[in-house]
Amino acid sequence: MWFKQICTKVKCNINFNQIHRKYSVIASVLEKSNIGELTEVKGWVKNLRVQKDLIFADVSDGSCAKRLQVVIPKHLKTDDLTYGSSVHISGKLSKSPRGQLELTAENVKVYGKCVVLEGYPFNPRTTHPPEYIRQYLHLRPRTNYMSAILRVRNTVTNLIHSYFASKNYIHIHTPILTSNDCEGAGEVFKVQPDNEATVKAMMQKGRNEDSVYFGSKTYLTVSGQLHLEAMCRGMGNVYTLGPTFRAENSRSRLHLSEFYMLEAEIAFCDHIDQLQAFIEDMLKYIFTEIRNKNESDLFLIDKENKIPTWLNKDFVTLTYDEARNILGKKGLDTTEEGINKEQELALVEYCNGVPVFIVRWPKQLKSFYMKDSPEDSSKVDALDLLTPVTGELVGGSLREDDYEKLKSKLPSEALNWYLELRKFGNIPTGGFGLGLERLLQVLCGVSNIKDTLPFPRWPHNCDM
Amino acid sequence: MWFKQICTKVKCNINFNQIHRKYSVIASVLEKSNIGELTEVKGWVKNLRVQKDLIFADVSDGSCAKRLQVVIPKHLKTDDLTYGSSVHISGKLSKSPRGQLELTAENVKVYGKCVVLEGYPFNPRTTHPPEYIRQYLHLRPRTNYMSAILRVRNTVTNLIHSYFASKNYIHIHTPILTSNDCEGAGEVFKVQPDNEATVKAMMQKGRNEDSVYFGSKTYLTVSGQLHLEAMCRGMGNVYTLGPTFRAENSRSRLHLSEFYMLEAEIAFCDHIDQLQAFIEDMLKYIFTEIRNKNESDLFLIDKENKIPTWLNKDFVTLTYDEARNILGKKGLDTTEEGINKEQELALVEYCNGVPVFIVRWPKQLKSFYMKDSPEDSSKVDALDLLTPVTGELVGGSLREDDYEKLKSKLPSEALNWYLELRKFGNIPTGGFGLGLERLLQVLCGVSNIKDTLPFPRWPHNCDM
Repeated sequence: MWFKQICTKVKCNINFNQIHRKYSVIASVLEKSNIGELTEVKGWVKNLRVQKDLIFADVSDGSCAKRLQVVIPKHLKTDDLTYGSSVHISGKLSKSPRGQLELTAENVKVYGKCVVLEGYPFNPRTTHPPEYIRQYLHLRPRTNYMSAILRVRNTVTNLIHSYFASKNYIHIHTPILTSNDCEGAGEVFKVQPDNEATVKAMMQKGRNEDSVYFGSKTYLTVSGQLHLEAMCRGMGNVYTLGPTFRAENSRSRLHLSEFYMLEAEIAFCDHIDQLQAFIEDMLKYIFTEIRNKNESDLFLIDKENKIPTWLNKDFVTLTYDEARNILGKKGLDTTEEGINKEQELALVEYCNGVPVFIVRWPKQLKSFYMKDSPEDSSKVDALDLLTPVTGELVGGSLREDDYEKLKSKLPSEALNWYLELRKFGNIPTGGFGLGLERLLQVLCGVSNIKDTLPFPRWPHNCDM
Repeated sequence: MWFKQICTKVKCNINFNQIHRKYSVIASVLEKSNIGELTEVKGWVKNLRVQKDLIFADVSDGSCAKRLQVVIPKHLKTDDLTYGSSVHISGKLSKSPRGQLELTAENVKVYGKCVVLEGYPFNPRTTHPPEYIRQYLHLRPRTNYMSAILRVRNTVTNLIHSYFASKNYIHIHTPILTSNDCEGAGEVFKVQPDNEATVKAMMQKGRNEDSVYFGSKTYLTVSGQLHLEAMCRGMGNVYTLGPTFRAENSRSRLHLSEFYMLEAEIAFCDHIDQLQAFIEDMLKYIFTEIRNKNESDLFLIDKENKIPTWLNKDFVTLTYDEARNILGKKGLDTTEEGINKEQELALVEYCNGVPVFIVRWPKQLKSFYMKDSPEDSSKVDALDLLTPVTGELVGGSLREDDYEKLKSKLPSEALNWYLELRKFGNIPTGGFGLGLERLLQVLCGVSNIKDTLPFPRWPHNCDM
């Protein structure tokens, strides 16, 4: 009884569609172009042109690169209606004399004013350089440049998920916190509770502060690969798209302390060709589809952005030795350290800007888990994919699947769980990692990686 | 010239489809059921029944809950072909006398043997309890229970992304590292480089070790909400699905140190009804679609799993005061601390298991950024959604959009950027956060949250 009374009294009798039909996002207003229809939009004034009896306002709501032109009779203009203000406008859709869709306002409401002189950093009719915009991370999505990049980023992540789903891959959330310091690379972040009371309450004799919470030192992941391999040996084909971290003291245009990595592990993969074919197919899919979905955004980011000339060509493959040879003839000798950034870009240029796989790498340049090359036992079956703009974009390999061989190469007992994967019903696998931000750099022609994600983190920069 | 020669010599002349057509995943073999077709599958032997001339093997490759029955003539049996081994089988598809699809093997190759006596923790024909399985994180995906949960998790994340995409929401990667300790909640992890050489090289006079890298103390995020609000005020509707962290010393069946949160921020949202309608619609979509896509997995996890009785009912809404009243009559008095877990579950029971929104919360129980309730200035326009199994599943609110009011409530100057969002073209917004693992608990009827993700982290547990 009680129950029924209360429910009737306060039950939420609302209809989802009613609520959200109140106004339309500009992307769909422009797409549908329903001339004569009563329409309500909400967004920000990007530009304001005052004429004799009329005011023309370009309104954007972030849903697409394009703006809606709104015609406002002068009597509806208030002082708050300025460049940068947020508005709610209702009126009727029509075609302008030039054939452009426009909304003739019947009602104008200003939600929030925007007084540039009070410190709003973006001036009307001004294209600010990315370094300037980057100083205002919290307001940056209001710029054309940044909002376009974030829409492209959103589409690219959607494309990645739909590509893998279409191939029956399972998405796995590999852990961010790990007790594995990943190949002893050294450049990792460690993690511990900030609250001294928590540390004190959990402290045990002989423990260090940085291992008291989890019982072992804990780091931020540098790669989900080893965890993905464990999943692959039960779930089959798997992938992950998530944050990874490097504590390097690097401020280059290609490095971040926090970045996103797409990693995939292909079950029953026993030849590096299979990896190459997968990566090439996936990249061509993304580069093709993004033009169908976000062409206006690409143009907003860079007016010179063009379809890559390599899109209908085969990617090139060179062995590491061949690549060295080519670099040597160009006067760029490689050292024991491998191929540096300048040399990577020289190799791409040499291949006329077509992405190039470098395969069959010297063992000592690559990780312990990579499989020996059948053609040459001093080499491993690894690959790097080099592209314009960034050089290395993808790294991958076949994984050592022989229990004894892997045991002899294992860098730490802490990885015994990884070794044990080879003991019980093991399968051959291979996989790769691709930096999402670098992919966006290539896709959008953005030279600084810090402009490819909403909140870049690098040394001395972790604002907000 | 050079270029052409090399490219012709080593160019990767492989066809993607050729490589991947070599074998089929079992999910698609079962779906297509092409009787008479030559078929190759790769996977693990889950069960082996030896008869006079024939061996029956159930093979699974992780792609679906169901197994493929393989009939193996005895002469193809080797010693390595046992329970747990990984195999490559080719043969012809037929219908068994019982009408079941089966593969009659013509070729059997064992990739990796599996000797249970050498330490493989899972016995044939045994259902191990989840606590036992949880001890073997790296092998856990080989169990029916865990692989089914991970497939459901994969589908749920895909459903979330497609739901938001269909409503024109932009996915934002809010940062994992933040200088904002989030409302001073205290239970955060701090982050610093592990490498002493890096710390030494970057050290400046007067700096503490834990602020030397980023120039300020840095934490793992506890919520992306404030960052999402910044994005919403330029991009419109936005959401994020990513990892969040709590350094609490809690080992309950509902808490993790690392977990995933779905957070959404709705642009131009000015009534809590809109939030409620959104959440209810989204949850009903997910609970309906998961049964279309993963019914066999849900059954594998819990044979008793049934369609929730509330799926075709309206969610209930109670104000906080009404909820207290009900609890009081049940002899469960609330304190100043709000509603505890026992009380949450009592309220859901009171509503006959239908999810219930608790709205209009006392100000002092909720966060500084929540908007005053127009009906009662001692209350804020916040909501909790309570469900069976977990109690609280979602928390949300309208956001304070008045510059002066927010300024008076701001807990720290470090949040001045957040305040400034209200200064320039501000809009009303509201949003919510939903724990992905708790959603999976409700969906699958899994009582311990540690079984809803591949690598659970909680105090004293960060293996691998």
